[in-house]
Amino acid sequence: MISNKMNSLLSSNSTIRAMFEEGKKLSRIYGSENVFDFSIGNPNVEPPEAIKSIINEILNSESPNLVHGYMNNSGYEDVRDDISKFLNKKYDLNLTFENITMTCGAAGGLNIILKTLLNPNDEVIVFAPYFGEYKNYVNNFDGKLIIVPTDTSTFEPNLEYLKSAITPKTKAIIINTPNNPTGVIYSETLLENLGKLLDEKQEEFGSNIYLISDEPYREIVYDAATVPCILKYFKNSFIGYSYSKSLSLPGERIGYVVTNSSMYDFNSIISSLNIANRILGFVNAPSLFQRVIAKSLEIEIDISIYKKNFDLLYNHLVNLGFSCIKPSGTFYLFPKSPIDDDIKFCEDAKKFNLLLVPGSSFGCPGHFRISYCVSYDTIKNSLPAFDKLAKLYKL
Amino acid sequence: MISNKMNSLLSSNSTIRAMFEEGKKLSRIYGSENVFDFSIGNPNVEPPEAIKSIINEILNSESPNLVHGYMNNSGYEDVRDDISKFLNKKYDLNLTFENITMTCGAAGGLNIILKTLLNPNDEVIVFAPYFGEYKNYVNNFDGKLIIVPTDTSTFEPNLEYLKSAITPKTKAIIINTPNNPTGVIYSETLLENLGKLLDEKQEEFGSNIYLISDEPYREIVYDAATVPCILKYFKNSFIGYSYSKSLSLPGERIGYVVTNSSMYDFNSIISSLNIANRILGFVNAPSLFQRVIAKSLEIEIDISIYKKNFDLLYNHLVNLGFSCIKPSGTFYLFPKSPIDDDIKFCEDAKKFNLLLVPGSSFGCPGHFRISYCVSYDTIKNSLPAFDKLAKLYKL
Repeated sequence: MISNKMNSLLSSNSTIRAMFEEGKKLSRIYGSENVFDFSIGNPNVEPPEAIKSIINEILNSESPNLVHGYMNNSGYEDVRDDISKFLNKKYDLNLTFENITMTCGAAGGLNIILKTLLNPNDEVIVFAPYFGEYKNYVNNFDGKLIIVPTDTSTFEPNLEYLKSAITPKTKAIIINTPNNPTGVIYSETLLENLGKLLDEKQEEFGSNIYLISDEPYREIVYDAATVPCILKYFKNSFIGYSYSKSLSLPGERIGYVVTNSSMYDFNSIISSLNIANRILGFVNAPSLFQRVIAKSLEIEIDISIYKKNFDLLYNHLVNLGFSCIKPSGTFYLFPKSPIDDDIKFCEDAKKFNLLLVPGSSFGCPGHFRISYCVSYDTIKNSLPAFDKLAKLYKL
Repeated sequence: MISNKMNSLLSSNSTIRAMFEEGKKLSRIYGSENVFDFSIGNPNVEPPEAIKSIINEILNSESPNLVHGYMNNSGYEDVRDDISKFLNKKYDLNLTFENITMTCGAAGGLNIILKTLLNPNDEVIVFAPYFGEYKNYVNNFDGKLIIVPTDTSTFEPNLEYLKSAITPKTKAIIINTPNNPTGVIYSETLLENLGKLLDEKQEEFGSNIYLISDEPYREIVYDAATVPCILKYFKNSFIGYSYSKSLSLPGERIGYVVTNSSMYDFNSIISSLNIANRILGFVNAPSLFQRVIAKSLEIEIDISIYKKNFDLLYNHLVNLGFSCIKPSGTFYLFPKSPIDDDIKFCEDAKKFNLLLVPGSSFGCPGHFRISYCVSYDTIKNSLPAFDKLAKLYKL
């Protein structure tokens, strides 16, 4: 009696989640210290200690009916104002509270944007490898997902491939930088050229194309890398942001959407995001954590923990003979699988209690993803298992 | 460039919200103490004082990565287990954690249920007067809203009307008890007969019909009234619950769905609710407040504050000559408008700074809704304005 859409999802439920359950099973059999679960992006770094005192400060100083009550569906105006000022300083912009819509994480943000934009059969372009949920989000609104093939030399979008993929039905393009699963940050030059190409295509087709930059990993970057701000390179652009990774608050579902002031039809778009928040059932981003965020804008988690994991694991894998692009951010590695069949490779890895995600889950077969947001000890203890896996494949 | 669906919503944005904005405007002109905003269901009763200490207890005793981290998309198993035990005791049931899906409020709950059930053009029946958002929720999944006319003698669903409204395309029926806007609690006899009718219709059409009971006001009841549990009267039944009203936490978006164990296709349904939580972008109900709820199950807000408002306002209106069914719960009154044109009536009320919502917003013209979840002083100070309104209409 399940709807057709859900029925097909039931049978092909997220590989990542399935592996999460399998990890728990293996842990019961072998002991959790002997299972190396690199399958899920659940940050192991603790939220900043300050979050606790900020919550206390809010509960002790603000009226409970304000803290836990309804507000505008786009969020508290003072919180949105604080975020806009923070972004203005960071990127030299001129945003006001009106540019900011508070959302239930980046997932909520992407859904209200797509609800706002998509008519059935509108095309939404993503670049392989891509976060698998994009397919479901686009499908929620009967859009058509168009996958532009991977450029494995850089793992940046290939604009020549993109050029031929854009049609008059193209309504949106989703990019994800720093990228899950590759860890690559899209360069300023790439974004500049992307913006130009989209301007040309809009002119050619007399259409509006909207660019959505999904940036939950914006703050998880290494060696002083920075993520260029998409708003500067294309007028019809949105940023989807989340505090799930940058403050290790994935369960709290708190994030925001930034809408570019230069966007075509700006006023209707922001009104529509507001209504979409309401009618999709989010109503508003969770209220206490909106207020927490406003007081946490300058706070960061300790990235060095991820960097230490990264150094140990990346160097070990490269020394073993795995080929892997060097990421500039996120807590993922995306090495090449020694065989084309990445699903078989990940099955083999399980023999050594290594839980990895096949690249096929990201539309990019022949690779696999390692989430290294786990303890340093897990990484250290997993190295012999990677040795055995490399040996099995005669690397 | 907005999608067609959103475009039509932009022009007819929620009357209730529009009035909320208008209230703020009037307050700026006349001073907030001289504007009587009865338009929105934002609880004025404070959340229980204990919520604060419970949050502190959790932050001090539980691991931050547990409290703020990802969990199963259906919610923490221990929280779901606690809720199932609470309901078992309250209603003499045999639920386990599997029957409970934690949701972003009741709005999130209704959306994941409808995502699970509806194919395009499936029919969903509601009874006028009904909460206007149901129309949007059904439209999210391209279902067809079927409105069964009001029985103004009782404001309970009229089963004869319902009988002729059910077709082979009927997929779901939404009831709302205690009811927004009437405050009526549906009786045991009504639910029993409703269950029987649905059983007959399922047999007649060889179909499955799902009954969704939306119960955010279940704990806001007066004079020891109780709300019968729908699970006992019909196998294919869900309860949608929220702590927005019962604990005055509307901004926190925390609630749950109960799925009847006897439901046809139970296992697929609960898996689908889980996936729907994920792919609609909720991902999970906010994590800290899931844990808060588990420790607040026996706590109640002080209903006597609403009751005092109710007594003062209801008696005054009846004495003035307004005709109004006596509610058993909620914080709404739904009097008959002295003229058929409820929209004109509410416009006239604004002359006296009274903000009321036309019954038309609930599919029930000729009536108006008063939300009395405001301060006692607001009620007291508003009485002369109601006197003038009654005089204008020569009551």
